[in-house]
Amino acid sequence: MREYLDQGRKTVDDALEELMPREGSRPSDLVAAMRYSLFAGGKRIRPILVLAAVEAAGGNARDAMFAACAVEMVHTYSLIHDDLPAMDDDDYRRGVPTCHRKFGEATAILAGDALLTLAFDVLSDSGSDSNIDAKVRIMMIHELARAAGWTGMVGGQQVDVASEGTEPDLPTLQYIHTHKTGAMIRCSVLLGGFASNADDALINSLRTYGERLGLAFQVVDDILDITSTTEELGKDQGSDASRGKMTYPALFGLEEARERAAELIHEAKTALISVSNKDRLTGIADFVLKRRL
Amino acid sequence: MREYLDQGRKTVDDALEELMPREGSRPSDLVAAMRYSLFAGGKRIRPILVLAAVEAAGGNARDAMFAACAVEMVHTYSLIHDDLPAMDDDDYRRGVPTCHRKFGEATAILAGDALLTLAFDVLSDSGSDSNIDAKVRIMMIHELARAAGWTGMVGGQQVDVASEGTEPDLPTLQYIHTHKTGAMIRCSVLLGGFASNADDALINSLRTYGERLGLAFQVVDDILDITSTTEELGKDQGSDASRGKMTYPALFGLEEARERAAELIHEAKTALISVSNKDRLTGIADFVLKRRL
Repeated sequence: MREYLDQGRKTVDDALEELMPREGSRPSDLVAAMRYSLFAGGKRIRPILVLAAVEAAGGNARDAMFAACAVEMVHTYSLIHDDLPAMDDDDYRRGVPTCHRKFGEATAILAGDALLTLAFDVLSDSGSDSNIDAKVRIMMIHELARAAGWTGMVGGQQVDVASEGTEPDLPTLQYIHTHKTGAMIRCSVLLGGFASNADDALINSLRTYGERLGLAFQVVDDILDITSTTEELGKDQGSDASRGKMTYPALFGLEEARERAAELIHEAKTALISVSNKDRLTGIADFVLKRRL
Repeated sequence: MREYLDQGRKTVDDALEELMPREGSRPSDLVAAMRYSLFAGGKRIRPILVLAAVEAAGGNARDAMFAACAVEMVHTYSLIHDDLPAMDDDDYRRGVPTCHRKFGEATAILAGDALLTLAFDVLSDSGSDSNIDAKVRIMMIHELARAAGWTGMVGGQQVDVASEGTEPDLPTLQYIHTHKTGAMIRCSVLLGGFASNADDALINSLRTYGERLGLAFQVVDDILDITSTTEELGKDQGSDASRGKMTYPALFGLEEARERAAELIHEAKTALISVSNKDRLTGIADFVLKRRL
């Protein structure tokens, strides 16, 4: 699995390089900031999920590559904005200064805006190297917009920020998890299905898999924030707790959080029971549960 | 013309009301911030341009309404982010507190992000009240993404922010004008043409009209910043000059700026010479030149 993920990361990085503005393009500081954050060594889990879902659905990876890149652009924009002083105020991510620490706040805000917009530019570029039908593209754009916007990720981030330091409660925590992280993970899996013209039954299996995986991903993230070292995290260890973030371990303790993550991964895999080429997707699910970073 | 613009504003406001999340939808503070800025009394010039271009191209206004609303959402997001402390740091807009002054910086950033994303949600919503073909929709989404992103508005804003306090030069000023304001004005006119299946000749006329109008719009904006009172502007008078902004009047003086605006409007109208139903578009061009606010 490690090899598959490494290979996937390289494939996605190459495709991103093709779609991103070249270093030095005007405005050069904006482009530098966009590239800095996009190529900061992300694991590319979301785009790999797009491609793994394509494999499960018997589709063509090349046709879905633009969608894989688009979700990574949206993910990167969300990290840039989340790190801003007005939000999580993080100085480091993946061991290097955050975008606003490196390029200043104005450029970081605009680099995030530009990456979000570029995702839709890429998804709607009919000159792109993809044979996907216009109707399917529209469906994919709509899915991404719903997953990323006020109905999804941005909504989750809003509640996350607003709930800092408040008394933790399960419904709020679930809202944050399903929206902030879950929506984009689920969307990644679905985009792979759409790009492969998967039938309704398969789309439903992929949706449930993506949903459970997305929740597990956030629970594991919350656990790692407590159990990892600052060096491993590439950012301050325990920052969630010190900020009074509402997390699964904060509400139920580490042990129950670990059990919950395992349960969610089990449910994710069970959702794929009638899917034929599911090995990559189940492998990613196992990886999410066991990852140390 | 005033009556046409008032009527257009009302039509657009009604359509926006239909497409926006209802007050009280969760997360309620995010939705309140999105609505606060979107319904803060904008003149809706961009969506009206979409509809006027539809009229010129013999299209159906109802089919293009979702695109008209999408450009206004993008415009509003850009105002929210431009006003942030890290950018122009404005406390007032249209006579009321800016989004971050009213809701806090984190919510303002997220409200901008959400409005930008909602524009693409709306454009790709196949359940919307529009008969526009999927291929045309894709073309419209792509046009908007190019006009709004690093190749357009965001690129212009980056150069605008970076050039504050530097020695004014014409190429930089032109870059700012064509990108920061021009791109979205031109895009609005083009979206109306696309939504009406206009032929290439008409699209070219609309493109030139939109380009010139967009430039004129920014030159007039720069003039008004100097010649209007704070009360008229709804924000601090002379804020461009005090901030060392690169503007047309700063580079050439008020008189030449006025002449340049008139020339651009003349060119915009000339571009429509062979277009039949151009009265609304020429009327808007005259209005842009003469507006006091």
